[in-house]
Amino acid sequence: MSTKDFIKKIFFASIVHANMLIKQKIIPRKDGLKIIKGLKRIEKEINKNKFKFKEQFEDIHQNIEKRLFQIIGESAGYLHTARSRNDQVVTDFKIWVKESSEDIMISLDNLIKRILNKAEKNIDTVMPGFTHLKNAQPVSFAHYLLAYIEMLIRDKKRFANNIVLIDECPLGSAALAGTSFNIDRKFTAKKLGFKKPTNNSIDSVSDRDFAIDFLSASATCAMHLSRLAEDFIIFNSEAFGFVEFRDKVLTGSSIMPQKKNPDPAELIRGRTAINYGNLNSMLTIMKGLPISYYKDLQDDKELVFDSYDTLKDSLLMAIELIENLNAKKNNMKNMAQKGYTTATDFADFLSMKKKLPFRTGYNISSKLVNYAEKKKIRLDQLSKKEINKFVKEVDINIPKMFDVVNSMNSKTSFGGTSAKNVKRMIVKYRKELK
Amino acid sequence: MSTKDFIKKIFFASIVHANMLIKQKIIPRKDGLKIIKGLKRIEKEINKNKFKFKEQFEDIHQNIEKRLFQIIGESAGYLHTARSRNDQVVTDFKIWVKESSEDIMISLDNLIKRILNKAEKNIDTVMPGFTHLKNAQPVSFAHYLLAYIEMLIRDKKRFANNIVLIDECPLGSAALAGTSFNIDRKFTAKKLGFKKPTNNSIDSVSDRDFAIDFLSASATCAMHLSRLAEDFIIFNSEAFGFVEFRDKVLTGSSIMPQKKNPDPAELIRGRTAINYGNLNSMLTIMKGLPISYYKDLQDDKELVFDSYDTLKDSLLMAIELIENLNAKKNNMKNMAQKGYTTATDFADFLSMKKKLPFRTGYNISSKLVNYAEKKKIRLDQLSKKEINKFVKEVDINIPKMFDVVNSMNSKTSFGGTSAKNVKRMIVKYRKELK
Amino acid sequence: MSTKDFIKKIFFASIVHANMLIKQKIIPRKDGLKIIKGLKRIEKEINKNKFKFKEQFEDIHQNIEKRLFQIIGESAGYLHTARSRNDQVVTDFKIWVKESSEDIMISLDNLIKRILNKAEKNIDTVMPGFTHLKNAQPVSFAHYLLAYIEMLIRDKKRFANNIVLIDECPLGSAALAGTSFNIDRKFTAKKLGFKKPTNNSIDSVSDRDFAIDFLSASATCAMHLSRLAEDFIIFNSEAFGFVEFRDKVLTGSSIMPQKKNPDPAELIRGRTAINYGNLNSMLTIMKGLPISYYKDLQDDKELVFDSYDTLKDSLLMAIELIENLNAKKNNMKNMAQKGYTTATDFADFLSMKKKLPFRTGYNISSKLVNYAEKKKIRLDQLSKKEINKFVKEVDINIPKMFDVVNSMNSKTSFGGTSAKNVKRMIVKYRKELK
Amino acid sequence: MSTKDFIKKIFFASIVHANMLIKQKIIPRKDGLKIIKGLKRIEKEINKNKFKFKEQFEDIHQNIEKRLFQIIGESAGYLHTARSRNDQVVTDFKIWVKESSEDIMISLDNLIKRILNKAEKNIDTVMPGFTHLKNAQPVSFAHYLLAYIEMLIRDKKRFANNIVLIDECPLGSAALAGTSFNIDRKFTAKKLGFKKPTNNSIDSVSDRDFAIDFLSASATCAMHLSRLAEDFIIFNSEAFGFVEFRDKVLTGSSIMPQKKNPDPAELIRGRTAINYGNLNSMLTIMKGLPISYYKDLQDDKELVFDSYDTLKDSLLMAIELIENLNAKKNNMKNMAQKGYTTATDFADFLSMKKKLPFRTGYNISSKLVNYAEKKKIRLDQLSKKEINKFVKEVDINIPKMFDVVNSMNSKTSFGGTSAKNVKRMIVKYRKELK
Repeated sequence: MSTKDFIKKIFFASIVHANMLIKQKIIPRKDGLKIIKGLKRIEKEINKNKFKFKEQFEDIHQNIEKRLFQIIGESAGYLHTARSRNDQVVTDFKIWVKESSEDIMISLDNLIKRILNKAEKNIDTVMPGFTHLKNAQPVSFAHYLLAYIEMLIRDKKRFANNIVLIDECPLGSAALAGTSFNIDRKFTAKKLGFKKPTNNSIDSVSDRDFAIDFLSASATCAMHLSRLAEDFIIFNSEAFGFVEFRDKVLTGSSIMPQKKNPDPAELIRGRTAINYGNLNSMLTIMKGLPISYYKDLQDDKELVFDSYDTLKDSLLMAIELIENLNAKKNNMKNMAQKGYTTATDFADFLSMKKKLPFRTGYNISSKLVNYAEKKKIRLDQLSKKEINKFVKEVDINIPKMFDVVNSMNSKTSFGGTSAKNVKRMIVKYRKELK
Repeated sequence: MSTKDFIKKIFFASIVHANMLIKQKIIPRKDGLKIIKGLKRIEKEINKNKFKFKEQFEDIHQNIEKRLFQIIGESAGYLHTARSRNDQVVTDFKIWVKESSEDIMISLDNLIKRILNKAEKNIDTVMPGFTHLKNAQPVSFAHYLLAYIEMLIRDKKRFANNIVLIDECPLGSAALAGTSFNIDRKFTAKKLGFKKPTNNSIDSVSDRDFAIDFLSASATCAMHLSRLAEDFIIFNSEAFGFVEFRDKVLTGSSIMPQKKNPDPAELIRGRTAINYGNLNSMLTIMKGLPISYYKDLQDDKELVFDSYDTLKDSLLMAIELIENLNAKKNNMKNMAQKGYTTATDFADFLSMKKKLPFRTGYNISSKLVNYAEKKKIRLDQLSKKEINKFVKEVDINIPKMFDVVNSMNSKTSFGGTSAKNVKRMIVKYRKELK
Repeated sequence: MSTKDFIKKIFFASIVHANMLIKQKIIPRKDGLKIIKGLKRIEKEINKNKFKFKEQFEDIHQNIEKRLFQIIGESAGYLHTARSRNDQVVTDFKIWVKESSEDIMISLDNLIKRILNKAEKNIDTVMPGFTHLKNAQPVSFAHYLLAYIEMLIRDKKRFANNIVLIDECPLGSAALAGTSFNIDRKFTAKKLGFKKPTNNSIDSVSDRDFAIDFLSASATCAMHLSRLAEDFIIFNSEAFGFVEFRDKVLTGSSIMPQKKNPDPAELIRGRTAINYGNLNSMLTIMKGLPISYYKDLQDDKELVFDSYDTLKDSLLMAIELIENLNAKKNNMKNMAQKGYTTATDFADFLSMKKKLPFRTGYNISSKLVNYAEKKKIRLDQLSKKEINKFVKEVDINIPKMFDVVNSMNSKTSFGGTSAKNVKRMIVKYRKELK
Repeated sequence: MSTKDFIKKIFFASIVHANMLIKQKIIPRKDGLKIIKGLKRIEKEINKNKFKFKEQFEDIHQNIEKRLFQIIGESAGYLHTARSRNDQVVTDFKIWVKESSEDIMISLDNLIKRILNKAEKNIDTVMPGFTHLKNAQPVSFAHYLLAYIEMLIRDKKRFANNIVLIDECPLGSAALAGTSFNIDRKFTAKKLGFKKPTNNSIDSVSDRDFAIDFLSASATCAMHLSRLAEDFIIFNSEAFGFVEFRDKVLTGSSIMPQKKNPDPAELIRGRTAINYGNLNSMLTIMKGLPISYYKDLQDDKELVFDSYDTLKDSLLMAIELIENLNAKKNNMKNMAQKGYTTATDFADFLSMKKKLPFRTGYNISSKLVNYAEKKKIRLDQLSKKEINKFVKEVDINIPKMFDVVNSMNSKTSFGGTSAKNVKRMIVKYRKELK
């Protein structure tokens, strides 16, 4: 698919180039029009798999030129005026990267929408928030999901920034020095969808920053998905049991009859490494390469195409996972009650009501936890008398104090996990999407 | 140095936090003011190397809190109200990265200026442009240098984009859930130089995108410098002899009395690998990490500090190299005349004057080169009679046709290497810098 | 520490070199002995921090030579006969890497011993083995631990192989061409602990394979530890509760009074990325470097020292974790009973007793699991009548059939998890260690 | 190609497994023989492209099992007795990696032979040895080439070590716990070409060390080739002109009629990055993966196959380059005379003949070079009188003293560049090859 799209760009850019040569009277109009017609025919041949690539011609570009000669004769010789494969190939590639970045942004929006839908249904679903994978504080499952939306929005910004950075057209830089033909680079730049032509012909044929930028944004995005995947794999274990997936996204075992494995999540996680490897390879190719064109650059496309395919697949798999996910609310709530997740609330309470320094409240709460741990009870199972051993004269509603939903909803600071906050954020994200 | 700067951020952020707590009446004014005074004193102690870090306290933050207790007593316990190390540390780090990005941008400007100065003196210096390290076409040494300015300008844009992306303050996200204290996150965000507070408390303590963005922009920038370094190492070889450096940037050999090695260029080139490795490490740390805070994140600072130091040094070394570089113009011109670098000009000429298709002109020129190669002469040493064997009735001024300076100055297309273009670009870059 | 050790090698190699020069009558005996005495004095100065490094001298080697001149006068000038820093530095470095590899192997043995001790106490501890983090089949916790011993033994082999590969001494290759002095390279090689001198002087000063080999073996070893760490982090979560650690290896939270986080496990996991990054950097430095010595190589030591320190620390932390780990056997067993982990045993049973093709037995067992799942009961809670619905006339002891300990102990194939096997393996590993 | 070979291994391993099941009387002989016949038929179908892979079956293994059912009916159900895809797939993969390692070793031998042939013809060809790409000392071009043989021999050792490390067969580990069937793992191990079965069933299905070892050895080998490629690219530039290649390995430009670019060398150099990226990806996949099988591992094959193909191609291209390379001996010798490459010889001479400390001789030679540099003459153009200004009463044959061939041949220390040494080494390498 990627390759096919790339071939489309090749023809598109050649036709624009031919039109410019005609307009500038650099080549005869008649020959120019023949060229354009010929190119369109070859493109169709390729699309219908009727084009025969010949090994003896070095690459796709030479193959097309040779075929053009077969079809329209000597007029074909006018096409390569005032250009080189060096500027041609980087132009085609830049167009492809630009459009593929836009395409990824659309997939990101689709994933965001799915997460929003899931979040909407789980605003009041309380789960233990984790740090160090240890139960930390009660949070809303929706709030947890929205954290991923923040990451994906940053991803979109990264791809958007890249599109701005890429917006200069190298066509007309020729081999590396520019050309003495009276070409109109602003015309070709505009027609090919770029804001303007590049400033320096040597840089134009040497530069692959845009490939690195694409690979880098893809690597970071894949990393975000890998974290989501890891969370889902853990949440889907028998021990956690926070989520379950529809059979559609699960896979069996060839030997164990009972197994239902969340393969897509593992593929997303593993393939992040492919996105990393491609970035690493591209940076390594460029390191210490003298400027202007070298054949080392040839593998740029394979790396970028592969990263695009990999990321796109991972985004689609993430969408599938989210759509087929069911939150097991009881398990989440039960787990939220383990591990003394409201101990901080008690410290905060002491700080607010008793005007104690936070560190003092923290120390009292710490002792209370130790006491409860030894007695193997939860904090809400403590009596007022027991609490008074640690802090005197404290007016406290014990069940409410240590209730995980209360705790969650008390976090009303901007960006905090209270249901009210979460609702407001969902509205905000929805608005930004359309 | 980096570490020292980071400690500054720690105190700055704590003082702003304390001020907010006072303003919001979350802690008593009196205690809050004591805290601020105490923090300032500790900062001074650290700056004067009078602060004793104690291993038994986990980290710098605990050390500071313990010392604060020693100085101001129980009031110190109020400082950590409504915050956690999780949000604190990421806030300090973000501030550091933001300022360091600005710092790198200044160094980039300095390097650009030095290159501009050198380019200005070499507008008419003709050298062979290379592709595949084979002589390709004559270009201006200034035009060659300006190619690097294009790269460095893209680097600046990348760091500038990062600064926009980083512009949300995580302080107040507490451990991961937000807080029930009535904090004012907009106040702290603004005071700490951020545009606004972060939207999601879980994402806030998990996110290290900004570190990756810094490492990624640094890696690409280092890559650009490595290409410059590679070019200089090659140009400085006895075989090329295009440039020479002042002794200041050269190093001798312990055994070979004659050696003068361009060590800084090699260090720049080699250390690019350090910038790559750090990016690679940070991405690897983040891959598959469940969200919210994990100790895995601890090494984020070491990686970023090291990449900053490495890149900063490389930029300074690049400045030194440019300043101490002398172009050996005769050698450049002599080499430009080797390798039939004006063969394309002849093909273009046939295309323009004889209205031949470019490919036909190319083929004629190709035969001419083969003929000259066999005779072991340059193209400008051919007679009109000899040329007429390959193409008839051609009105040609042979010395001018094959002159490397003429060739260079004929490339007047936008972005091309003609002296006129180069002059115009230098003016443009100067204007953009100031 | 690493650096200090490296300085030791520098003096050691210089003294051996001087002895050889005396033996071969290349330098006067008297001057040679002065040199050796002088070097020993300088080494002591360095060890006592009384040596002043001067920035104006390029590196440690020049500093030492200058100081030697101060101490013994012109005789110092004889030391650098028939050698260059190029061969000197790679010799010192190779010695360091060899000894550090041996050192890592000792730490690996220490870790293996700790794991063996822990395994010995858990031969009969049944836990769910996981694939895809879903309960798969019951396994012995000891068997699980021994899997790590297999990895660590492979690590040892890797470092041992490296030690063989490194065993050629480059000293005497001089700058890159060898020397015309009548040196005895076999003598220096032997005295410095190498098997023989290197074969090719150019390769000798260019080669950094041994650094890459060290970094590569370290990366793989760190990877193994990262998997152990990940397992422990997951097992230590409230949801799993398979293991608990003594407070000694746990860390608290600055805000949450109840938290006890397994920081060392997270550090081990995260720092694997440092080992990876260093390997990546070294490979990148070497890529496309023309042969013989370049300053790019200078950072080889920093990368290798850092990987050594990181891996050594991780090994020590892993030892600490194992020593302070307590298996919560009840939790493990309870979890082993969830997720129908004996479904494969039933399929195997049908295959053995009823001579059904395995796939047929698998399908029957699969239906049985679905039935039990819907009824929300375990397999051992099924009645014979219920089972007969799925397969007729089956003579089965239900509690035994589905018992997790029975299942575990039935895996008597070589390498399987039965207690008998595990015991035998522990004996085998113990024997191999001593 | 790689994939096809892998499919061969799949059938091979299944047939061996079936034979073992028959031998152990685990499955009926009759059904077992049907299975083997059926498998052979399917293999033929695949080889003739007559096999239809169906997307609805998860992978190649399920496809084969389903087809087996079509061909031989219910007997097919006996094949998967006592095994899982988890152990099956890693067994197939290990066999492939073992054989591919042997295959690479053969290619390495082929390249070594080509280099030896080229070296043999260039024992007396003097060229400047470089450090920092600056002329250092005269060396034999053969000696330079032999440096690469040293690297390639180390590569062979690395692959050979891997073959020893890989030599344990995982088949029979089943899903992860082993099996209760009375299988004979020693039988299958032996028949599949392994030394013995693996020791631990959990490790067996989790372990991908062998893939990393292959990728790591490939990365280092590719790095060596990249250095050769870089050298050739530089030596092939117009400025150096040390080597020329036959047109067969050169490529033209689409715009510049005169260009002949050494594309294969650039491809070798660039694609090293692919080998690095794959290693990086595999390490990243494994980092922090809990033990036993996860779908993350699925991409292991793609990475290893790609690294094999890439390295194999690079080795073939390197062979092509060497075979089509012509050393331009005059250019090499001329360049060897530039840059005062015999200055060290003069310092050595003073040290030997005048018994001066080397550092004193070095300083005198240094002054001599400065003097000659200012006069813009070579050292052999100095008069005895001029030399006596720097060192008195020196009995010196000036032309011989500073002759580059003399210098080269004086380096008779073991591993040095004298023609005598080089000849001896060539004989040694030839002997070791056969």
